[in-house]
Amino acid sequence: MTGGPRLVLRDQKPQGTQVRLGPGLVVGGRAFVVMAGPCAVEDEAQIAEAADVVASAGCAVLRGGAFKPRTSPYSFQGLGAPGVRLLLEAARRHRLAAVTEVLDDDDLAGLEGVALLQVGARNMQNFALLKALGGLRRPVLLKRGMAATVDEWLLAAEYLLAAGNEQVILCERGVRGFDPSTRNTLDLAAVVLAKQRTHLPVIVDPSHATGRTELVIPLSLAAAAAGADGLLVEMHPWPSTALSDGDQALLPDGLRELMRKLPPVLGAVGRELWRSEPMRRAVAR
Amino acid sequence: MTGGPRLVLRDQKPQGTQVRLGPGLVVGGRAFVVMAGPCAVEDEAQIAEAADVVASAGCAVLRGGAFKPRTSPYSFQGLGAPGVRLLLEAARRHRLAAVTEVLDDDDLAGLEGVALLQVGARNMQNFALLKALGGLRRPVLLKRGMAATVDEWLLAAEYLLAAGNEQVILCERGVRGFDPSTRNTLDLAAVVLAKQRTHLPVIVDPSHATGRTELVIPLSLAAAAAGADGLLVEMHPWPSTALSDGDQALLPDGLRELMRKLPPVLGAVGRELWRSEPMRRAVAR
Amino acid sequence: MTGGPRLVLRDQKPQGTQVRLGPGLVVGGRAFVVMAGPCAVEDEAQIAEAADVVASAGCAVLRGGAFKPRTSPYSFQGLGAPGVRLLLEAARRHRLAAVTEVLDDDDLAGLEGVALLQVGARNMQNFALLKALGGLRRPVLLKRGMAATVDEWLLAAEYLLAAGNEQVILCERGVRGFDPSTRNTLDLAAVVLAKQRTHLPVIVDPSHATGRTELVIPLSLAAAAAGADGLLVEMHPWPSTALSDGDQALLPDGLRELMRKLPPVLGAVGRELWRSEPMRRAVAR
Amino acid sequence: MTGGPRLVLRDQKPQGTQVRLGPGLVVGGRAFVVMAGPCAVEDEAQIAEAADVVASAGCAVLRGGAFKPRTSPYSFQGLGAPGVRLLLEAARRHRLAAVTEVLDDDDLAGLEGVALLQVGARNMQNFALLKALGGLRRPVLLKRGMAATVDEWLLAAEYLLAAGNEQVILCERGVRGFDPSTRNTLDLAAVVLAKQRTHLPVIVDPSHATGRTELVIPLSLAAAAAGADGLLVEMHPWPSTALSDGDQALLPDGLRELMRKLPPVLGAVGRELWRSEPMRRAVAR
Repeated sequence: MTGGPRLVLRDQKPQGTQVRLGPGLVVGGRAFVVMAGPCAVEDEAQIAEAADVVASAGCAVLRGGAFKPRTSPYSFQGLGAPGVRLLLEAARRHRLAAVTEVLDDDDLAGLEGVALLQVGARNMQNFALLKALGGLRRPVLLKRGMAATVDEWLLAAEYLLAAGNEQVILCERGVRGFDPSTRNTLDLAAVVLAKQRTHLPVIVDPSHATGRTELVIPLSLAAAAAGADGLLVEMHPWPSTALSDGDQALLPDGLRELMRKLPPVLGAVGRELWRSEPMRRAVAR
Repeated sequence: MTGGPRLVLRDQKPQGTQVRLGPGLVVGGRAFVVMAGPCAVEDEAQIAEAADVVASAGCAVLRGGAFKPRTSPYSFQGLGAPGVRLLLEAARRHRLAAVTEVLDDDDLAGLEGVALLQVGARNMQNFALLKALGGLRRPVLLKRGMAATVDEWLLAAEYLLAAGNEQVILCERGVRGFDPSTRNTLDLAAVVLAKQRTHLPVIVDPSHATGRTELVIPLSLAAAAAGADGLLVEMHPWPSTALSDGDQALLPDGLRELMRKLPPVLGAVGRELWRSEPMRRAVAR
Repeated sequence: MTGGPRLVLRDQKPQGTQVRLGPGLVVGGRAFVVMAGPCAVEDEAQIAEAADVVASAGCAVLRGGAFKPRTSPYSFQGLGAPGVRLLLEAARRHRLAAVTEVLDDDDLAGLEGVALLQVGARNMQNFALLKALGGLRRPVLLKRGMAATVDEWLLAAEYLLAAGNEQVILCERGVRGFDPSTRNTLDLAAVVLAKQRTHLPVIVDPSHATGRTELVIPLSLAAAAAGADGLLVEMHPWPSTALSDGDQALLPDGLRELMRKLPPVLGAVGRELWRSEPMRRAVAR
Repeated sequence: MTGGPRLVLRDQKPQGTQVRLGPGLVVGGRAFVVMAGPCAVEDEAQIAEAADVVASAGCAVLRGGAFKPRTSPYSFQGLGAPGVRLLLEAARRHRLAAVTEVLDDDDLAGLEGVALLQVGARNMQNFALLKALGGLRRPVLLKRGMAATVDEWLLAAEYLLAAGNEQVILCERGVRGFDPSTRNTLDLAAVVLAKQRTHLPVIVDPSHATGRTELVIPLSLAAAAAGADGLLVEMHPWPSTALSDGDQALLPDGLRELMRKLPPVLGAVGRELWRSEPMRRAVAR
């Protein structure tokens, strides 16, 4: 069709796009990148503790929402700009890159320093936002809409590239399904298709995809085996008190278990887990 | 749940909300209101001809998109602000109210004179847009997201009411389904639930719900029998040349047939079709 | 495609198929036929009382399951052959036709006297059962599978016709969806498509489609307006004690209300409600 | 709920059920079992060639349909009993176990010698068939219905166990979704849930789940990483001439590639690939 994706297609860039999030930190290369942290930044102690766990587990990127897209106007809406500052401070202390969601291009000014700007599932076809982000030269994480076809997802990415921004990472986070036993249905076939059809990196969010802590590790390993380039995973230091999505967050121990189990699976498919410089040196010894 | 809908609930206003779109034109009262017109305003001749057909068929409101949310960045994106002017001019000439979609609150300045501001299915959970529209005192048409539950839809409306705007009309436009024989799956149970649970008017878009011209009339009659307060229906004077969604648009004759078939069904459920003043006088004679 | 439906297509029989269920009782003609009764035959008192309500409300057919396809092996499985006898006895006493589900062709011997043999949604593609029923010369009610496309549904009917049985009534009962606010999603577009594409009568089961009593009447009226040929509706004389599906059954008063509200809607679309001979005479006076 | 699964639950048998399909061939143990072959047995040459490829690639089980549940009555319905004989002969020549679908308990007599009796997705809730198979003491492969929840799937298995047959293997084969880019949506979370909640082995059919050859290998590796106990995969020696489902079948080279890529992934999660005795000896040298 004349309206189909073009710039995102693999034949435009057969070697694949690598999105750089910081010194030595690239998504879409050989290294598999784990981004972890709480659903929402709640206060200084929580995000500081989370950053500590995330860094010591060997992850590359700290996640934490400051502007939260909540189904109900009466749910916690995030701390806003002050939340971004807490996130960045916690990340900087541990030399982590930071990823957070942007809901409105008016908020972009307060998001300087954020390495990766997330477009959430609900905004995948918010074309005004896509066009604004397409005008930047900053990495964007584009989540698949909750009932978006792969074609629609790729075309949403095409909006970013057509506006001039090539630094796009795709993120599968589960699609809406009929079975209440999981929050969404993780669609790993879409990850493989997106990898085959485009030159963009593709990561997986197993936390929103399943909504259940006990499914996060096995499905993370499955994502790695299927060829994903990384993970976006929820970890909360104290999930029982979380202001949002506590049921699906890993505990610190769970994150550490995940980071222990990933390397052999990645090795089996010719990849490796991203490690910070000090970690790599420690492992080498 | 603490995060559930409150202000939209029927017990807040048992008599129901009536949204006024113009002199003698109210949605949510006894009269069933038909809004019709092309998917997109394409040029002056097209929207003028459409307005002529819409008015002479006895409809109340002219629809026509100027800012189009298109899946592909390479598809026709609408005429923008000039399209709004053409729409308003055509509507004014026939004393029709106008409804058009808003994608970005930055465009609101150019939408003065539009009686009803549509939030499209893709933006149902664009909370930045909802908050901006909640701050206005103008009627808003809130389409159900393509995979939104009824609860999520009502909570999106709650964002508008919580921000102070009570002039909200809900619109069911089909949900995403597995059967390629229709574009979406029209969910009339959601219409009945929304009417029972809230005090807001609820209308139906049978064109996007089905994507097939030959289904529009029977499903419009079904919507009327189920208790909907109106319709938003696509009619194109020359559908074979339409720049978008030509397959689902009624021809002028189809719109006239619909307007002939609605009154008996509405009468059977204690409603009546909205008619313009001259039409009512003509019918009375 | 070579494998598509043929014998069921409308051009094979433009005037439409009429399926005769008893003296003066035809589905697919001008009269709209309501089939009502409990989900399951529970005991003699219950089905006798149900038959009394169904007949006095003016319905044509008594429904009641004897062989129940239950999701769990520990749920009530129906009374089996004795249930069939109770159903037939109750129906005969009121000159009602009877409809009941068949799960296994080995049970057909015990189903003599049943006017309409139902193939349930779970068995829509039980081709062994379809072939067995195709070899009979008895009316079959073919429910749409819970995730069957319209094409698959028509092809399941094609199995019956290809095996020689033309007495087939289609029944839409809702498809599986993502929204827990209804048990299934009633797909009235499928009813219209099936009517347009085939010569078979099509009825609607609003009880299973919604799972909620308060939605049954409005959606029944919608089905009538959309062009359905009848309804299969659950009514239980004492729903709070029902052994299955009590939440979706109409009370006797609800059934009477439905039968009062249907005639004007049917009249609006050129149809009429089927009435038994004595009722017609009573109405005529 | 009182009607929930009981006998299938893991706490009934914490060590897990192992289903024996032949000498040294067990599903549900440490070894991961690959079952491969064509969708349908077409003729002697085809199934003989397929068996040769399957055995030499190191797979354990030969699949091939003889009684085919086809959507259209005009599609190839399988060779029936003669097809079973061809399948068994080909399997025996290579010391492979055989798996084939059963549509009707009347066909069971002709299925002596088949190691594993498959209940297809369309028959997952064909309770008459489940009860008949529950009365046997033979291994049954229960595919998940195309829109069955995990609970419904486990309850279908419960029918088999409640009737006395514990030799049950579950098979995820994708659920119906809205995205035409794959035939179905592979739901690996359901595999993990089924493994966690029950003591039954769970395998994955990546061929029907995706309908696309190029997705089969990555998703097979993902299934292995997620903890599945095996695969049921389509391989056709000459897919372009296949009478059914040619688009999703691996070529012989694809099957060999899969069998080369599985061992490292299995090793990474503490499992190993099942190998025939001669193969194990050859590998050991």
